[in-house]
Amino acid sequence: MNQIKSYIAEHKERFLTELIDILKIPSISADKAYKKDVLKTADTIKYSLEKVGCDTVEICKTDGYPIVYAQKIIDKNLPTILVYGHYDVQPPDPINLWDSPPFEPVIKKTDKHPDGAIFARGACDDKGQMYMHVKAMEFMTATNQLPCNVKFMIEGEEEVGSANLATFVKNNTEKLKNDVILISDTGMIANNVPSITTGLRGLSYVEVEVTGPNRDLHSGLYGGAVANPINILTKMIASLHDENNHITIPGFYDNVEELSQQERAEMAKAPFNLDAYKKALDINAVYGETGYTTNERNSIRPTLDVNGIWGGYTGEGAKTVIASKAYAKISMRLVPNQDWQNITKLFKTHFENIAPQGVTVKVTPHHGGQGYVTPIDSVGYKAASKAYQDTFGKTPIPQRSGGSIPIVALFEQELKSKTILMGFGLDSDAIHSPNEHFGVWNYLKGIETIPLFYKYFTELSR
Amino acid sequence: MNQIKSYIAEHKERFLTELIDILKIPSISADKAYKKDVLKTADTIKYSLEKVGCDTVEICKTDGYPIVYAQKIIDKNLPTILVYGHYDVQPPDPINLWDSPPFEPVIKKTDKHPDGAIFARGACDDKGQMYMHVKAMEFMTATNQLPCNVKFMIEGEEEVGSANLATFVKNNTEKLKNDVILISDTGMIANNVPSITTGLRGLSYVEVEVTGPNRDLHSGLYGGAVANPINILTKMIASLHDENNHITIPGFYDNVEELSQQERAEMAKAPFNLDAYKKALDINAVYGETGYTTNERNSIRPTLDVNGIWGGYTGEGAKTVIASKAYAKISMRLVPNQDWQNITKLFKTHFENIAPQGVTVKVTPHHGGQGYVTPIDSVGYKAASKAYQDTFGKTPIPQRSGGSIPIVALFEQELKSKTILMGFGLDSDAIHSPNEHFGVWNYLKGIETIPLFYKYFTELSR
Repeated sequence: MNQIKSYIAEHKERFLTELIDILKIPSISADKAYKKDVLKTADTIKYSLEKVGCDTVEICKTDGYPIVYAQKIIDKNLPTILVYGHYDVQPPDPINLWDSPPFEPVIKKTDKHPDGAIFARGACDDKGQMYMHVKAMEFMTATNQLPCNVKFMIEGEEEVGSANLATFVKNNTEKLKNDVILISDTGMIANNVPSITTGLRGLSYVEVEVTGPNRDLHSGLYGGAVANPINILTKMIASLHDENNHITIPGFYDNVEELSQQERAEMAKAPFNLDAYKKALDINAVYGETGYTTNERNSIRPTLDVNGIWGGYTGEGAKTVIASKAYAKISMRLVPNQDWQNITKLFKTHFENIAPQGVTVKVTPHHGGQGYVTPIDSVGYKAASKAYQDTFGKTPIPQRSGGSIPIVALFEQELKSKTILMGFGLDSDAIHSPNEHFGVWNYLKGIETIPLFYKYFTELSR
Repeated sequence: MNQIKSYIAEHKERFLTELIDILKIPSISADKAYKKDVLKTADTIKYSLEKVGCDTVEICKTDGYPIVYAQKIIDKNLPTILVYGHYDVQPPDPINLWDSPPFEPVIKKTDKHPDGAIFARGACDDKGQMYMHVKAMEFMTATNQLPCNVKFMIEGEEEVGSANLATFVKNNTEKLKNDVILISDTGMIANNVPSITTGLRGLSYVEVEVTGPNRDLHSGLYGGAVANPINILTKMIASLHDENNHITIPGFYDNVEELSQQERAEMAKAPFNLDAYKKALDINAVYGETGYTTNERNSIRPTLDVNGIWGGYTGEGAKTVIASKAYAKISMRLVPNQDWQNITKLFKTHFENIAPQGVTVKVTPHHGGQGYVTPIDSVGYKAASKAYQDTFGKTPIPQRSGGSIPIVALFEQELKSKTILMGFGLDSDAIHSPNEHFGVWNYLKGIETIPLFYKYFTELSR
């Protein structure tokens, strides 16, 4: 591809301004209060895809938030790349831990991002990474170098489980037909250690409610005589892990793929500094399942984490109360072969079974998705690898991620094509956390690398 | 005492209206936002004490909320009764479970209160019960029947641990000198089973904070690899009870008074219907320490309850986050001979000790107080018993309460006098809970019984 570096250098400021404008819209899909903003973001993405030369651009209605679909078909005999991304973002809570407001983007330098990083909710996940593809498209159409067909499918419900995307995909297999799916919604190891994500964990997300007495009680008059839902909830949650941090839900590990010693040895070659890891998180020790390393614990092993817990009096000062109810949000990250719906069922049955007399328990599944593993000998992987070699000067490392993009497994099932996960964010970019950011260098590097993937994928597909 | 029934009948409506006006002021001492209201309530109480004929009425400043002090000394040779109560109230949370707004009192009939009950925060605890004493005083002064000297000490920080009352008492032992202390801040067994509280549990209230990573993390990227503060907190709290629901803190039971079989048999005679108890709370089973009955568990045994817990994402929908911090408010009810400061220390040491590597733990003591037991052969107890016999037509049952009035032990220590706990509320009155209420019958019965206590105490003291 010619001129790509000069094109980016010339339009860099506009590329940043355009992204910043999108980041200003609080498109929080989990909170109904932001409905207008989510819809406005969809419109903005539609407009930006029209502007970069797509032929057909549509807002496709669903039972939830719409999917923005766009395409440019230049020759039916050439391969087709389907780009997937999402325009919704995670809630910004806890707001008070942000150094600048989450929807007022600012660019600041950091140790890992000496060229500056854009701080805003969604900067990396996924507005920034999604918009790299729009700008890469701009470059290819503006310079007449688009080598193949392209389709865009940008959804607005990824952060709440992509419930309506599945239906859309199933109902539009012909429209979405492609030779490879390209997604930038993961990370890489470091700016000088490029990597391509080859595995994702599945997810089962549930909410639990423990009810004791029918009303809040005075802890003096009733303390010790009735089951306290909060005490019970802590006991129940605590029992979900044994002393080796194995998960105790019967059947939970039944289908877990055990990697060979060779595979684990291969994984262990990825650069990792435990001291730096601990220092970055300000912890004196890591913690997890006995018998596995940190990188194994957060990629090839399933986990169970409480994402939120609440009950009783949480205000200032003291209140001597026994709450009537206690709640928790619990998510399980799953590995390939664990079926998320089965795991959800196992969790529900087990959690209901371990409830002692004196309380009732309700388990409500939120959402979930299957894990995914992609081979490294596919045309798509090879094309991505070559593209990184050109722009980073290094062969990227294949890496299993601990995160989940539940829809990826469904894509393969419905559209019969493999997904290439080209992520340009860093784990330290604080996605889902306060002060989420995305390196300016990474954003531009993504825009530079993507067109090369198009080029090599087209060439290798011949 | 002559005319008491007719006086109450004549002034009943005004007695209710005056109390309702006080209940309208949200004097929540735990929340600084209500400072003005707390202070306004103190002024209102001062005015009401002036109006019923006290000689000296003062607002005594403290480092926190003021203490309203009043007295009427008719003859230095007559005994002096010191009445204690509080004008502050518990926070009304959770607001959404109230059937009517907590600070807009309404009178409604209930099964246990066929004559109606006043529904409002503080109706029973303690504005209603405290105001009975003001109205009893009104009767005695209006009809020239006050038989002895009286002092009132009404504080505004009982619900937050009476931190400044202790200093006030220590600095004013001469001013507060008395022959008996009279408090209505407890309950009785039933309207047809009058009882006098002879024991109170002590209290140690702490807040704990568990910190893991220095920021909220994405649960996919870090899940399973770092200690999740919420999971850890549940494990730590769960471990505070063993499988018999004994508390596991080393040394916790060292000074616990074990009652004799005879004493326990005596206790077991108090009317109690387990089925009715379970039905009233809508629970299928009670729960507690192995080897003890429900009435023992909530009176003669120490307990540990979580009063509040929070951490992570608690909003609508799902957020896949590992929180940086998790919190809980924990209170322990103590029995006589357990020193609350020592127990607080034992808790802190133990909780810090059981924290695994990968997290740090902070334990902040809130407040506490010693338990209390009063003898039933004192002049005060006998006078109270006779008063109840006159107004209820029955000898009251001595009863240990599970609740705490931490300041009572201090009164005895500093003022060298016994406290008589004449409570007229019912356990089902939902103090500290949504829909707190106080029976109109109980309110008036209290006003009727109190002057008789004055009479008999004066007579028996001769």
